[in-house]
Amino acid sequence: MIDLRSDTVTKPTSEMRQAAYDAAVGDDVYNEDPTILELEALAADKLGKEAAMFVPSGTQGNQIAVLTHCVSGQEIILEAESHIYFYEGAAIAAFAGVQPRTISGTRGEMDPLTVRASIREDDIHQPDTGLICLENTHNRSGGTAVSLENMQEIFALSREESIPVHLDGARLFNASIATGIDVKEYAAYTDSVQFCLSKGLGAPVGSVIAGSANFIKKGRKWRKRLGGGMRQAGIIAAPGLIALRTMVDRLAEDHQNAKLLASGLQEMAGLAVENNVDTNIVLVNTNEAGYTANQFIEMLKAEGVLAVPFGPTVVRFTTHFDVSTKQIEVVLGKINRLVK
Amino acid sequence: MIDLRSDTVTKPTSEMRQAAYDAAVGDDVYNEDPTILELEALAADKLGKEAAMFVPSGTQGNQIAVLTHCVSGQEIILEAESHIYFYEGAAIAAFAGVQPRTISGTRGEMDPLTVRASIREDDIHQPDTGLICLENTHNRSGGTAVSLENMQEIFALSREESIPVHLDGARLFNASIATGIDVKEYAAYTDSVQFCLSKGLGAPVGSVIAGSANFIKKGRKWRKRLGGGMRQAGIIAAPGLIALRTMVDRLAEDHQNAKLLASGLQEMAGLAVENNVDTNIVLVNTNEAGYTANQFIEMLKAEGVLAVPFGPTVVRFTTHFDVSTKQIEVVLGKINRLVK
Amino acid sequence: MIDLRSDTVTKPTSEMRQAAYDAAVGDDVYNEDPTILELEALAADKLGKEAAMFVPSGTQGNQIAVLTHCVSGQEIILEAESHIYFYEGAAIAAFAGVQPRTISGTRGEMDPLTVRASIREDDIHQPDTGLICLENTHNRSGGTAVSLENMQEIFALSREESIPVHLDGARLFNASIATGIDVKEYAAYTDSVQFCLSKGLGAPVGSVIAGSANFIKKGRKWRKRLGGGMRQAGIIAAPGLIALRTMVDRLAEDHQNAKLLASGLQEMAGLAVENNVDTNIVLVNTNEAGYTANQFIEMLKAEGVLAVPFGPTVVRFTTHFDVSTKQIEVVLGKINRLVK
Amino acid sequence: MIDLRSDTVTKPTSEMRQAAYDAAVGDDVYNEDPTILELEALAADKLGKEAAMFVPSGTQGNQIAVLTHCVSGQEIILEAESHIYFYEGAAIAAFAGVQPRTISGTRGEMDPLTVRASIREDDIHQPDTGLICLENTHNRSGGTAVSLENMQEIFALSREESIPVHLDGARLFNASIATGIDVKEYAAYTDSVQFCLSKGLGAPVGSVIAGSANFIKKGRKWRKRLGGGMRQAGIIAAPGLIALRTMVDRLAEDHQNAKLLASGLQEMAGLAVENNVDTNIVLVNTNEAGYTANQFIEMLKAEGVLAVPFGPTVVRFTTHFDVSTKQIEVVLGKINRLVK
Repeated sequence: MIDLRSDTVTKPTSEMRQAAYDAAVGDDVYNEDPTILELEALAADKLGKEAAMFVPSGTQGNQIAVLTHCVSGQEIILEAESHIYFYEGAAIAAFAGVQPRTISGTRGEMDPLTVRASIREDDIHQPDTGLICLENTHNRSGGTAVSLENMQEIFALSREESIPVHLDGARLFNASIATGIDVKEYAAYTDSVQFCLSKGLGAPVGSVIAGSANFIKKGRKWRKRLGGGMRQAGIIAAPGLIALRTMVDRLAEDHQNAKLLASGLQEMAGLAVENNVDTNIVLVNTNEAGYTANQFIEMLKAEGVLAVPFGPTVVRFTTHFDVSTKQIEVVLGKINRLVK
Repeated sequence: MIDLRSDTVTKPTSEMRQAAYDAAVGDDVYNEDPTILELEALAADKLGKEAAMFVPSGTQGNQIAVLTHCVSGQEIILEAESHIYFYEGAAIAAFAGVQPRTISGTRGEMDPLTVRASIREDDIHQPDTGLICLENTHNRSGGTAVSLENMQEIFALSREESIPVHLDGARLFNASIATGIDVKEYAAYTDSVQFCLSKGLGAPVGSVIAGSANFIKKGRKWRKRLGGGMRQAGIIAAPGLIALRTMVDRLAEDHQNAKLLASGLQEMAGLAVENNVDTNIVLVNTNEAGYTANQFIEMLKAEGVLAVPFGPTVVRFTTHFDVSTKQIEVVLGKINRLVK
Repeated sequence: MIDLRSDTVTKPTSEMRQAAYDAAVGDDVYNEDPTILELEALAADKLGKEAAMFVPSGTQGNQIAVLTHCVSGQEIILEAESHIYFYEGAAIAAFAGVQPRTISGTRGEMDPLTVRASIREDDIHQPDTGLICLENTHNRSGGTAVSLENMQEIFALSREESIPVHLDGARLFNASIATGIDVKEYAAYTDSVQFCLSKGLGAPVGSVIAGSANFIKKGRKWRKRLGGGMRQAGIIAAPGLIALRTMVDRLAEDHQNAKLLASGLQEMAGLAVENNVDTNIVLVNTNEAGYTANQFIEMLKAEGVLAVPFGPTVVRFTTHFDVSTKQIEVVLGKINRLVK
Repeated sequence: MIDLRSDTVTKPTSEMRQAAYDAAVGDDVYNEDPTILELEALAADKLGKEAAMFVPSGTQGNQIAVLTHCVSGQEIILEAESHIYFYEGAAIAAFAGVQPRTISGTRGEMDPLTVRASIREDDIHQPDTGLICLENTHNRSGGTAVSLENMQEIFALSREESIPVHLDGARLFNASIATGIDVKEYAAYTDSVQFCLSKGLGAPVGSVIAGSANFIKKGRKWRKRLGGGMRQAGIIAAPGLIALRTMVDRLAEDHQNAKLLASGLQEMAGLAVENNVDTNIVLVNTNEAGYTANQFIEMLKAEGVLAVPFGPTVVRFTTHFDVSTKQIEVVLGKINRLVK
């Protein structure tokens, strides 16, 4: 099977497994796991934030951000197809008691004027606006890299309005590799950032949330409530450290593979690539080929290729460390035969 | 002052005051207030529902509907400018723990195809869709009457998907008077309906929520938690009964006054009526006249006319029982002088 | 029927009905109802607080206090049989997301040492303590008046710990009349107070919550979310004003009637008065007489006397404005015949 | 340092590290991690439940149980010093919106009569009782093993009342080893069970929650919302499998060490062992020796021994895999010198 469903499927490397084997550990609920501490310090440093915290998933990192920045009864602004809104089971409402105010973006970018117009007035009928969330790269737009300018403009208005900004940077390193902009530069226009070790970076488990020291201190209690307080978690932080230290630059290969896949698919009759392939995601519309997304995916599966539906007639392919250029060529060959 | 801010400002009539004076009362928390029981029975009958419950406000009626139909972690579908989403302080998230999925409508109507496409799939990342909310007339679209056909289509798909439908009918009687369709006919395409006694119908306080007997039974506990369990509430239900029995047909006058106001304003240089004036609301854009909404409202206030902002350059006027046709003409005269 | 179930069953007096008839009204959501403003000012003045707000029920007043003082994930300290904990449908958890820490009191008083010991430490496993709630008089202890000393001691430690204190004073005027201590004196040892107009004071509907101006400002938004924002609410505030101005001193009669009832019942074979009858509540244990509470209540009902169960073999009688001394004597005669 | 703070501090064995190194993995969010599937199947089998789910912590397992069994606005019955109530940051209120009804137990056991009396009546003022939680062994009672009889009686009444029962069995294997009763036997009197791999069993990270297939299916969505959906989690499940297969029987050594420690401390002047040392926890009161818990702990720390406070003058020692009998003797010698 060539698995292009998600970059979450990557398996740990031997080096990562060895790191898990060798990891110095302690009880992280007591803040005594040296490997966790090392990972948190490294992550904070890379992002230019005062502090960072290891969490079992990107969803938990995002939820901690919302719970820590907001209070119940507020509204938060986010893109209409953002992961926090679309794929986190309404947890922002269920746990933090906040209401999303969604803005339809372009290639994952919200128009700053619309963001400003969406901030609520001081009116007894209206919730206060408590947070603005960004996502970079933006998954449902096809892994597009949100521009630094867009982030800067939104951050600037957030300062005027005294509203914090959280960045769901699950794939922030993909954005950085695609644009050449340091993750620290992106993070400068946020109050908190979450990024995943377990997607393109290939670690088996975990994400990191970073922000001010006070934000992380408050966030630790929310992590405990959410059940993210783990014990000898160094055993998973150690592969995370390898990921963060050695797997960032090679994301360029995934991006090249995605471009290769996209240009190949684009040439095939009835298939249309829907997104700007900035990073490692390719969205293909199968409508003109006469297939629903699910039909197309079933056919691919029979050929040993896995992908996921992203709409009635849209299929998502994601490249990653465990898929080589050669395999992409194999996939193109198979699809070419299918659509003929 | 000629107060066109809202139909909520109407003052009780002498007959209503007399009814309050004479009201037979009891302790409604024990279900023993005869006037409340009479009002609830009448309202249920008018709407063709099994049962009804008096509540202190439309907001509470809507919140009870969401709390009773849904469980925490679900998503509810509603129009992007609906009252429940826009004007209820994010209470659906704060109290019911549900996330809104907003659809931008046309004249208050959501496209049934979009509604269907917004219902979530059975996927571990996604919340279940727990409720569809409608609003008729639709306030922020300018009091437009949502068509019965639209309600029927959405109700039909809701049956296929086993999702309940709630109608925020704060001004449902305005829709009924405007279209000639009985409120019972509208209510037939819903699982629960809330309507206000205190808006166009002129009662001093209160709304009614109606639905199945089981829905109302469950809803009573939520009303108690929300603090809507009142004691000798017959004193406010009595004016509500007068409102429901005698004030419905005269809404036609408010609608005529709104049309008169709209056609007068439309002729004035720089003013543009933005909405279809189906009922008692007129939205006027002041942009070309060179005023912001707030500037325009301040000028009107100095002339003894009250209105409310509805956007940066949009002003809302609402006609009601306490404003006569003659007063509308006075208002037109004043505005005409102002914009010249 | 002689109705001793609760002082909530009192019906408005002619004077109150006249006040409702005559009430000057406006739209209270816009803060323009003069009668509401008058009631709020009077209540704030009587309690020595900066501001006050009318609410449709005591439950809503209490819930607003918890929502305004606390944030989700905190713990609040309250007596194990307090109304907020026992009779408000777990709303503190459902709406405010706070966990109760209950302390079993003596005659409604929590031991200040136990309160202090119940305040949580700064520990990642533990919630912060966000509020201490008192109740005076204490309903489930049989309307006992909590001593000023007890309130002072708890208030003193609350200052050391920077934790606000809320008083559920649904029947605070009963405490005041019983002890001769001014309500202002009690209120001095609180951050917020809720009292009911619709219990012993005889108004048909409503309660008042008082506190600092900032607390009330924040509270207004929570009232709106809870659906307690009413329109021409002067129609119910007017009877409330009568209640507050004219019905306080006469509570002494209710207390005398309760004492008369208690001393009569105490002499009857098999009946034991369980509480100190400080105010208008009498709790009678029917165990030795061989009846469950429900059996006893059914027998009474057949004789035209209403009471409520307060435990498997405990019956609660509550005296109020609509029950005379003569009727208490009638009740005693009936019960005497029953238990013989 | 001899670390007796908690059995959570145990470090993974070489065998566990090797298992992590060798683990077959997949993406557990897609249910494709073979090691996770193996662990879940083994755990379900050992507990006699239909299904099980791996979670990052015991807290998350407990929270998932509450979220899955209950709806917002319910009340849950639990022991007054239970972990779910005492040490989980009020998360049951913050996330599930349920209110705890606490019962003070004896050696961790709630009196079934009190449990029955605490179930709420069908009354509009009262929340429904949605869950009964047990804890075995009971941490704050000093690791006492709750008797099977107690669990049977509570389970029997729960069936009559149709209320589910959840067991916080973080240290259920300790109870089993102490009593000789199979964990399956305990689990038979529950609807769901959570147990920890990371405490006495010595795994680095994780817990398991087990119950009916439908319960686990619903629970998976709550785990996702809480951020407990991990990717190649086999890397931590593999040590968990070792723990579950090889570390259970050796808990007997920890229990012997705890008894040795307790009998030694009991003989020392001024120290009083407070608990029945059924398992691996010893609670010592330092009051008569003239120390607060914190003073005593500081003195111990200076001697290279770690313990935790469990009250103003109570210190908790917990034995575990990383502390030998010899080290217990060393600890006794040090304390003996200190208190002389």
